[in-house]
Amino acid sequence: MPRQPNVMEIHLPDWIDSFLAGCRDNVPSIRDRMSLVIEAARINVSRGTGGPFAAAVFETESGKLVSVGINLVASGRLSILHAEMVALSLAQMKTGGYDLGRHGLAAHELVTSTEPCAMCFGAILWSGVRRLVIGARGSDASRIGFDEGPKKRNWKTELEARGIAVLCDVERKAAVRVLRDYCRDGGEIYNARKGAG
Amino acid sequence: MPRQPNVMEIHLPDWIDSFLAGCRDNVPSIRDRMSLVIEAARINVSRGTGGPFAAAVFETESGKLVSVGINLVASGRLSILHAEMVALSLAQMKTGGYDLGRHGLAAHELVTSTEPCAMCFGAILWSGVRRLVIGARGSDASRIGFDEGPKKRNWKTELEARGIAVLCDVERKAAVRVLRDYCRDGGEIYNARKGAG
Repeated sequence: MPRQPNVMEIHLPDWIDSFLAGCRDNVPSIRDRMSLVIEAARINVSRGTGGPFAAAVFETESGKLVSVGINLVASGRLSILHAEMVALSLAQMKTGGYDLGRHGLAAHELVTSTEPCAMCFGAILWSGVRRLVIGARGSDASRIGFDEGPKKRNWKTELEARGIAVLCDVERKAAVRVLRDYCRDGGEIYNARKGAG
Repeated sequence: MPRQPNVMEIHLPDWIDSFLAGCRDNVPSIRDRMSLVIEAARINVSRGTGGPFAAAVFETESGKLVSVGINLVASGRLSILHAEMVALSLAQMKTGGYDLGRHGLAAHELVTSTEPCAMCFGAILWSGVRRLVIGARGSDASRIGFDEGPKKRNWKTELEARGIAVLCDVERKAAVRVLRDYCRDGGEIYNARKGAG
């Protein structure tokens, strides 16, 4: 008889608590939201808990910090654990439903240190967020060896057509620095066929 | 101080055990592999544990059943819990690594009752599977209201270019029947912007 695990249990690293303890409840400025995310990516690398990617969900209007996700592919041993997937899932757990855009909730946004890969692009569609805020470009990630996967050329338009605004190049230089430092220090370019996020 | 869950815990429904108890360890025929997956999709609906989608990971050569995933979006309250994501993650947990294509493992394949959506397309890229076997087409899912999301027109070629063979229309009629029955019985077309998988 074939057997398989009946529970998928994904643990966040311990440092996330002290990181959150240093965060404000509300972060009004978009650049500050991105700086927070970039800092999480940097810590993820320095603590050896994952790749140089982080993401967070905020309430767009108030800037309330809902969740912080980091890349956990290597430490969690699951290829789906890109930072965006973790952040979106934690936000959905916290708000108690699979649709962050449902009636009665404030509008949510995903702030991500690097342009989402093909998988995360799709995940954003189904998450219910109303805005996507991006730091480093996909080409910045590709330059150090990560693979974004094939996305449609007009992927931004596709998101916007579904009511998800897209804001690019927010604190891009700082976001790129985390990627470059990771590469310079010989960080693992993980994932089966490579994969950023 | 912002707080968030530190553990993501995803439970499979109880019926999965008895379902697995009825499965053979090895399923040599591709059509039988698909029938098993379609049956899991049907049970997922009849037990009320999720949408009409299932997927499984097999060792391609031996037909060894590695994992069975079902759509858990509504019951698990997470929009990423498409059947393919669950099956791939369970297979990676079982084999102990994020790359099902890594050296030393037999080649793995993902058998899915319906064409993967945009998110799952990306997830397949990073999973390490070497073959994708599909039952119902994306257009079959769209016809009953599910949204596949924007995939590149040449998505099959993109997978094949990365060493992932694609086999379509396997037991398509039976796969479509599960979708139609779900629709006929008034099943929820879940997901923020709708979403198949």
